[in-house]
Amino acid sequence: MADIATRVYNHKWKIDPIVRSLIDTDFYKLLMCQSIFRNRPDTTVCFSLINRTRSIRLADLIDEGELREQLDHVRGLRLSRGESTWLRGNTFYGKRQMFRPDFMEFLENLRLPPYQLEKRDGQYELTFEGKWPEVMLWEIPALAILMELRSRAVLSTLGRFELQVLYARAMTRLWEKIERLRALPDLRIADFGTRRRHSFLWQDWAVQAMIEGLGEGFTGTSNCLIAMRRDIEAIGTNAHELPMVYAALADTDAELRRAPYEVLADWHEEHDGNLRMILPDTYGTEGFLKGAPDWLAGWTGIRIDSGDPAAGAETAIRWWRDRGEDPRRKLVIFSDGLDVAKIVELHHQFHGRVKVSFGWGTLLTNDFRGLVAGDGLAPFSLVCKAVSADGRPTVKLSDNPAKATGPAEEIARYRRIFGSGQQAPQEVVV
Amino acid sequence: MADIATRVYNHKWKIDPIVRSLIDTDFYKLLMCQSIFRNRPDTTVCFSLINRTRSIRLADLIDEGELREQLDHVRGLRLSRGESTWLRGNTFYGKRQMFRPDFMEFLENLRLPPYQLEKRDGQYELTFEGKWPEVMLWEIPALAILMELRSRAVLSTLGRFELQVLYARAMTRLWEKIERLRALPDLRIADFGTRRRHSFLWQDWAVQAMIEGLGEGFTGTSNCLIAMRRDIEAIGTNAHELPMVYAALADTDAELRRAPYEVLADWHEEHDGNLRMILPDTYGTEGFLKGAPDWLAGWTGIRIDSGDPAAGAETAIRWWRDRGEDPRRKLVIFSDGLDVAKIVELHHQFHGRVKVSFGWGTLLTNDFRGLVAGDGLAPFSLVCKAVSADGRPTVKLSDNPAKATGPAEEIARYRRIFGSGQQAPQEVVV
Repeated sequence: MADIATRVYNHKWKIDPIVRSLIDTDFYKLLMCQSIFRNRPDTTVCFSLINRTRSIRLADLIDEGELREQLDHVRGLRLSRGESTWLRGNTFYGKRQMFRPDFMEFLENLRLPPYQLEKRDGQYELTFEGKWPEVMLWEIPALAILMELRSRAVLSTLGRFELQVLYARAMTRLWEKIERLRALPDLRIADFGTRRRHSFLWQDWAVQAMIEGLGEGFTGTSNCLIAMRRDIEAIGTNAHELPMVYAALADTDAELRRAPYEVLADWHEEHDGNLRMILPDTYGTEGFLKGAPDWLAGWTGIRIDSGDPAAGAETAIRWWRDRGEDPRRKLVIFSDGLDVAKIVELHHQFHGRVKVSFGWGTLLTNDFRGLVAGDGLAPFSLVCKAVSADGRPTVKLSDNPAKATGPAEEIARYRRIFGSGQQAPQEVVV
Repeated sequence: MADIATRVYNHKWKIDPIVRSLIDTDFYKLLMCQSIFRNRPDTTVCFSLINRTRSIRLADLIDEGELREQLDHVRGLRLSRGESTWLRGNTFYGKRQMFRPDFMEFLENLRLPPYQLEKRDGQYELTFEGKWPEVMLWEIPALAILMELRSRAVLSTLGRFELQVLYARAMTRLWEKIERLRALPDLRIADFGTRRRHSFLWQDWAVQAMIEGLGEGFTGTSNCLIAMRRDIEAIGTNAHELPMVYAALADTDAELRRAPYEVLADWHEEHDGNLRMILPDTYGTEGFLKGAPDWLAGWTGIRIDSGDPAAGAETAIRWWRDRGEDPRRKLVIFSDGLDVAKIVELHHQFHGRVKVSFGWGTLLTNDFRGLVAGDGLAPFSLVCKAVSADGRPTVKLSDNPAKATGPAEEIARYRRIFGSGQQAPQEVVV
């Protein structure tokens, strides 16, 4: 077991890589990458890092040289032989050879494309441009690097024992959360916290604590490297970038309206079972489900990633009933802004009515709130999104207007086309 | 920095020594040993281990084979070359060559004498008989072994992360104590916690935390091995065993009355400065100070080790004034049952009136109260005392009747001779 405090302390003297492997990323990135590699290999995209928490001035906290060193390190990474073997030979979601040989060959030869880095108004403008299947793999490492460099900047002011006590407190807090979760019957929960983690070592600790504390109730981690090293399931399906890019590429309003379903039609061809998860909120869950083709109701479940989660699940349940499906055989995955109280509440509300699962992110892998003076380690809202595709801006609405992204006139157009009506704004905590 | 939780977890598979060196003992044992080696080398004594907390059935908790293994290991230890060099060459209390060549030669050739071990009523009866300078060195290792085997017995029921969280909580607790102490101006405090420590690694952690947290305010540790390894001061002067054995050897009441002063007369010849600390409570502080020769009032200070500590310090201050001494130039060391609240209180009461120092024991190195179910790691009151000398029973009265030891009729005789009158019983916590 790593002595995290000592390792962190030693970071003060030597730079060691924050991202130590190309598979230190979320599993769904690889699944989506394979899908893109097959269906849209030549689309060019631009991904951009956005710090929604403007009060945290990352460019003041993080040294540009250190940031470049970490980003350059990732550009030097290649898939190792062991990683390749694991991806090729492992069974994911019950399926052998999930990754096709042509895609594996692409991954084995991949190096991440260049990045553009500038400072503006106390923030870093970090962008990645190039072919979609390559650029999209920057998202998680870029986020993890910025998050951890910020952690390190704050930690570097602490003494050795202050550090150890800091981690002691964080461990105690996380373990107390796990003890509360342990009391829930039939809980199913996975680690989704790679992108917002305090650090790699801390995520790895959190995963091990979940393994010991929850046993079978802990279903796995989204992080491929940790899944491989800890011999647990890699978890994840698909994300907003697919409909966002498909939508941006649409030439007409009619094509735009069809785009989110086209994504899932491509997915349908490739995957079955528990990988058939609908992420319905990119342009509003209500409208998406209303206009969905019947074959989508046959899918395994829905992931609720914005808006009021209970309301989202009730909407899904109604939709399944309307389409003649039995909700008790359907899976609802909650993955937005979860902490223990919310997990307990949702579990009580939906356990028995649908199959429930949780993808626990930031407050699993980065709950250091209140542990240093000035709350300098509190998590913040950093994202890295596709902002354009083939030169056209992308738009995301989600079920929370506070999370909408894209040019204002495009947001208005998308709202009109997808019929996203009244949405209640939800505070974006993490 | 040791990852204590992992080390503890690994203990489940392999026995590693609890006492890893002959100098993993309190500094005052070595000072007293040298004094005894010069003044009473041929006195035979019997030391006996006594668990005052009868509710903790050590013989049920601790495997006899494991106990014997640890005790046998100590019998196999010899002073290492590095340890000998440190004792011979180091400056203690500002003095070079504190340990005389003949004593060092004795130490270098020493192996601890045999022990006798039996079980009775759920307790171990562990006794040591032989020459005083040899037998007396069993006290601290015997206590440390029993204390740590009890810790290990309880810890062996915990999972790996439960262990890590346990230590996380204990670290947090100790650090919070240190943060409170840091607020005290001119605090002087040392670690006196070897005999009652949770474990060696934990004491070592506690010492390092004190170093970082208190800086100059932390004056050192009573533990010679830790002092050597961490390059800090070894702290300690003398203890009750000297007057107890001197008193037991007295042939007449008059000799008995003189015995406690004789101890200090021998000490006076050998030591000066901060080593001239009076421990006045063996047969009652009031009587001891009343009957003390004037040269004792010239000593540096008094250690308060039983009874109400504030009352004891006030008694000492009055005594110094009566003898024409300026209390502000005198040192009072509090060393009985301290925790932060009491330290803060005593510091406020006496800071500026005398020089104040604290010897913090059990609740520095063994505060695991409430951290496991059933409170199985709470510290308990284990002592290892000289019970006889040259066949005659020893007696201790102290300033707390609850701490009196010895045969009842001898206690009565000592009370009469030393004029120990009304004493308020104090609860013996640790």
